[in-house]
Amino acid sequence: MRATRSARETIAPLLGIDIPIIQAPMAGVQGAELAAAVSNAGGLGSLPCAMLTPAALEEELQRLSSLTSKPFNVNFFCHTTPTVSPLQARGWYQCLSGYFEELDIDPPGDSPGVLREPFGNASLAVLERFKPAVVSFHFGLPEAAQLDQLKSWGTKILASATTVDEALWLAERGADAIIAQGLEAGGHRGSFLTEDMTTQTGTVSLVPRVCAALSIPVIAAGGIASAEGVAAAMTLGAAGVQIGTAFLLCPEARTSALHRAALTSEAAQHTALTNVFTGRPARSIVNRLVREVGPMAAAATAFPSAAGPVALLRAAAESHGCDDFTPLWSGQNATGCREVPAADLLRLLASEPQ
Amino acid sequence: MRATRSARETIAPLLGIDIPIIQAPMAGVQGAELAAAVSNAGGLGSLPCAMLTPAALEEELQRLSSLTSKPFNVNFFCHTTPTVSPLQARGWYQCLSGYFEELDIDPPGDSPGVLREPFGNASLAVLERFKPAVVSFHFGLPEAAQLDQLKSWGTKILASATTVDEALWLAERGADAIIAQGLEAGGHRGSFLTEDMTTQTGTVSLVPRVCAALSIPVIAAGGIASAEGVAAAMTLGAAGVQIGTAFLLCPEARTSALHRAALTSEAAQHTALTNVFTGRPARSIVNRLVREVGPMAAAATAFPSAAGPVALLRAAAESHGCDDFTPLWSGQNATGCREVPAADLLRLLASEPQ
Repeated sequence: MRATRSARETIAPLLGIDIPIIQAPMAGVQGAELAAAVSNAGGLGSLPCAMLTPAALEEELQRLSSLTSKPFNVNFFCHTTPTVSPLQARGWYQCLSGYFEELDIDPPGDSPGVLREPFGNASLAVLERFKPAVVSFHFGLPEAAQLDQLKSWGTKILASATTVDEALWLAERGADAIIAQGLEAGGHRGSFLTEDMTTQTGTVSLVPRVCAALSIPVIAAGGIASAEGVAAAMTLGAAGVQIGTAFLLCPEARTSALHRAALTSEAAQHTALTNVFTGRPARSIVNRLVREVGPMAAAATAFPSAAGPVALLRAAAESHGCDDFTPLWSGQNATGCREVPAADLLRLLASEPQ
Repeated sequence: MRATRSARETIAPLLGIDIPIIQAPMAGVQGAELAAAVSNAGGLGSLPCAMLTPAALEEELQRLSSLTSKPFNVNFFCHTTPTVSPLQARGWYQCLSGYFEELDIDPPGDSPGVLREPFGNASLAVLERFKPAVVSFHFGLPEAAQLDQLKSWGTKILASATTVDEALWLAERGADAIIAQGLEAGGHRGSFLTEDMTTQTGTVSLVPRVCAALSIPVIAAGGIASAEGVAAAMTLGAAGVQIGTAFLLCPEARTSALHRAALTSEAAQHTALTNVFTGRPARSIVNRLVREVGPMAAAATAFPSAAGPVALLRAAAESHGCDDFTPLWSGQNATGCREVPAADLLRLLASEPQ
């Protein structure tokens, strides 16, 4: 790989991998298969666990361990589950009531539960049986004692920062490397010290600023989708890159047919940060719900509860082959999506730029 | 310079320069001195003309021509001057009335005129006497006949695009190269086919997408502030770069003391796209007006008229050494600002990445 940093300066030795490319954890669209394929090919595959119960986590980790003997990354969210008042919940339903009518489904009396498990002792207990090489966190870090336990196994800790302040916060609390998540990135913004989205900067600005502020390695994320993008990020000072969107068409991903179709259509040219799918800003291709209710809806209840009513609309619409209410996660640069095995895509991303 | 493209593939020969770095035109903060210094050092200096009357344009071009015999760029805006109703003008004053009271100044009865000259035949007549090597446009392009006349002199035409659609539009109408302005860039967004700011993407995403869509050269702009940034942009496929913010501390720039102080303070870490200074989204360091009224104020009248009342507040506040109402233009990456002669900065930017 052509880069200003020499190979020994990349993140690869720290993580025990050959290629300093991390497949970004993407909850809801991938599991053990994609992670194993990337890890087996020499990169770092990631298992997204935000939507897994402890039992499902155990099952998925067992599958992943059976598919690869290489290091992999297990990813968790560190949000606080909020209390949503009945008034707020009603307000969000009200905002969506026209869609319930149109799809001819009844809004439930109660807010349906939404599974977005923050990291906790139950997850930790499962992890203890697997002692993964790498664990990464979004929305901050778990408690110090939990972090200490993870580290006692030799597990390396990665965490996402969207500002220099967040990077410093994470480094002070023991992260081994920082994922600098540029504004271009798909899915949830990892921001946790601010809700002001004007603080979020593009990758080309964030990476050098975080590199200048920290002495630990920085992993660039957001908008990187080609060998040229990887080399450019390394030139900016990154010790590795994290890439998500480009892997969404790989056969090992569980990306739905509707989502795959959107990613390969003109629609993928226009994404937005939106809170309509979960209550927290996340980058999705702009579809009907984003256009009509978002991108940022004041009525959307706090993460993750906003996803409750949307899940009902989504299920009804998807049964008719309609993606109006589907979170079509994508970064701003979907040009790297390839319908090829993840190992082939990884090799392409790690190749000499043209 | 280390870059994937070989030297002959850069924008340099097309523009008759040695170093494929364009100093971004920055109206209000620089004139002939900065442009000449960059051109004399082998890059392409730019003269921003949006705030110049034809007489002032002539004077500034004469000064620039006396300071350099190298190619330079003359930059214009191509906006349509809007009609602002008395009701809209009153609404904007109303929104700012507390500040007029606080500063103890009278709002004028009429909306004060704001000088932001769109390109027209008067400018063309002045240019004919100088036949500059390069003319660049923001907010689109002038009429075809005007463009033809410029080109008949051998003048090369550059124009800013913030989306792939805009790049295609400009290329079809005869631009010789496209400035792909990533979301990180300071000052006015060049967008002209959309007002939807969710369409604006980061440099690391925009540059490869525009390169893939066009056969003419692409110049990367936004967040580039170091030799590493320049090399990264070239690796992404750019044939050159345009850099503004980094030059703002050079002695040849006319950047005010207040603006210089902001750029070297903690405040520069937080910029936002705001319409409060001119009515059109532009990136500034977040100061009091942006924080309290913006960043995007529905009441701000159309570009450039919103600047009228703000200019009065600004003048009063600045006379007390206060930057509350000063447009503190800056990109998202002010880390490249150096208080050194522009020639030294250009050499630094063009050097081998560390």
